[in-house]
Amino acid sequence: MKKIAIDAMGGDHAPKAIVEGVNQAIEAFSDIEVQLYGDQSRIESYLVKSDRVSIVHTDEKINSDDEPAKAIRRKKNASMVLAARAVKDGRADAVLSAGNTGALLAAGLFIIGRIKGVDRPGLLSTLPTVDGSGFDMLDLGANAENTAEHLHQYAILGSFYAKHVRGIAKPRIGLLNNGTEATKGDSLRKEVYNFLASDSSLQFIGNVEARDLMSGVADVVVADGFTGNAVLKSIEGTAMSIMGQLKSAIAVGGVKAKFGALLLKSSLYDLKDTLDYSSAGGAVLFGLKAPLVKSHGSSDAKAIFHTIKQVRTMLETDVVGQLVEEFSKESDVND
Amino acid sequence: MKKIAIDAMGGDHAPKAIVEGVNQAIEAFSDIEVQLYGDQSRIESYLVKSDRVSIVHTDEKINSDDEPAKAIRRKKNASMVLAARAVKDGRADAVLSAGNTGALLAAGLFIIGRIKGVDRPGLLSTLPTVDGSGFDMLDLGANAENTAEHLHQYAILGSFYAKHVRGIAKPRIGLLNNGTEATKGDSLRKEVYNFLASDSSLQFIGNVEARDLMSGVADVVVADGFTGNAVLKSIEGTAMSIMGQLKSAIAVGGVKAKFGALLLKSSLYDLKDTLDYSSAGGAVLFGLKAPLVKSHGSSDAKAIFHTIKQVRTMLETDVVGQLVEEFSKESDVND
Repeated sequence: MKKIAIDAMGGDHAPKAIVEGVNQAIEAFSDIEVQLYGDQSRIESYLVKSDRVSIVHTDEKINSDDEPAKAIRRKKNASMVLAARAVKDGRADAVLSAGNTGALLAAGLFIIGRIKGVDRPGLLSTLPTVDGSGFDMLDLGANAENTAEHLHQYAILGSFYAKHVRGIAKPRIGLLNNGTEATKGDSLRKEVYNFLASDSSLQFIGNVEARDLMSGVADVVVADGFTGNAVLKSIEGTAMSIMGQLKSAIAVGGVKAKFGALLLKSSLYDLKDTLDYSSAGGAVLFGLKAPLVKSHGSSDAKAIFHTIKQVRTMLETDVVGQLVEEFSKESDVND
Repeated sequence: MKKIAIDAMGGDHAPKAIVEGVNQAIEAFSDIEVQLYGDQSRIESYLVKSDRVSIVHTDEKINSDDEPAKAIRRKKNASMVLAARAVKDGRADAVLSAGNTGALLAAGLFIIGRIKGVDRPGLLSTLPTVDGSGFDMLDLGANAENTAEHLHQYAILGSFYAKHVRGIAKPRIGLLNNGTEATKGDSLRKEVYNFLASDSSLQFIGNVEARDLMSGVADVVVADGFTGNAVLKSIEGTAMSIMGQLKSAIAVGGVKAKFGALLLKSSLYDLKDTLDYSSAGGAVLFGLKAPLVKSHGSSDAKAIFHTIKQVRTMLETDVVGQLVEEFSKESDVND
């Protein structure tokens, strides 16, 4: 039985969306058990009773504007902190939250802890491509600064994720750079390029440009946390702006445009589906001793369901156990 | 009379699109003179004769796949090199090309030269916002690595551009960062933040996130060249992917969807217009002793016309002269 600790109080639509997502997952997957951390009576008002769901009551929660590290230290009984502690103490196998991202990352690092040999866990998400297959990118901003060694580890981490969780036999690894030629980039990129090119365990395809990510140029894209964060937010902002523009162009276009949009409805839904990558789950802080997944703050029940499904796949394939083994080999070599 | 040297052979649709854009500009603006560098007979086949247009014939040109610095050194009679040299020698006031970006930047730095006091000229473009007003961002990739001093200079350069060329009285300057709080970012960003916050000549509004750029969060966005390049290409790639998806969603949607799209036509054109920022002109390598503007490789006659218009505004407002004065003051202070 896979035991998943879930922060019921994090996110814009908590606890309703969280609990309803849990209801769906419990029905769909007979091999999971869920522990819900948060306000018992509010959770119960949405929960479909099941002997595979338990509630751990707490009044305390971390708010979206709390200072992350401080919140983790001071709010010892916050729903998110208790959920992370359950993993640390072996009472749960993985943790999921839609709450304060910084606080969740801090909880991951300080409570669950890093895999031995992984210097700086990276934030990994599966992002959309036009053909629907998606690509994994990390680090999306868990770190503000990274060394070449960190980026080499991200290539290994991303490769493991794509292989085990997404079932891609030989994930193509690309290094995000300002041009495709081997000599491109700043000193960090040049150093990373050499690391990746000489690591025979990776299928390194060279430098990739941000322009080509959504065309599926690579299965895994390696970036430092600062650039990865900027690219992620650029993609999000551009997609949101265009969809908003399309909506308002239709709105001001009068009856003719509205009728046109009605006829186009299913095509526009297809477009929205392609851009909506919540079906790939949430963002993983990868490199920790257990799966820790951040679901988007605006997650609805469906997004929570998909994130639970993602966590279940991570547990089923034991991708974290595989990583532990890989990095113990690496540190043996380095000894 | 404003004298503009134009590389007639650069870009995907050269010399046709270039020359046709020149024809339009010569008709629209009575205060410009154009020198066209390239294949005389091919240029003449598109040119509307005017006593304000001259042709300087050359058989040599820089190709899009030439190695930039090498091409500039070896192809001394290339159309782009001759155009830049005309500026250097005082026979022209500004240079425009739609050719090899790297080569044009190299021509700018090695032939035209930097303004005294500007350490690293930055590539600046006006990018689209949903309200149509746009924002300026630099450095978009002229440099792979930047110091805090460079970014401080980009804030000054961007502020001058927005003020003089775009007519924004007090341009709001934002620092591209991984969060809006003052303490966010890597060590580079923290250093730049302090520089900008203590420079009373700038209207610094703090950190901005890539997610909010298209919403018009700032008039000028300051970034290092590596991140700026990644953000620019992310915006371009996402916009292209979504528009492509929309097109193919309509195509596979059958007769109903096609009829819907027909009714929506003008709304979809509005959307395309918002995203098409070629009306704001090309990318300026800003910080050189004269305006040097790169028009997109895929530029059509209209885009070339708008880039000439942009160059004319830069000459009319003498924004480069203003910069020279500003940076001579700065170096006096530093002496």
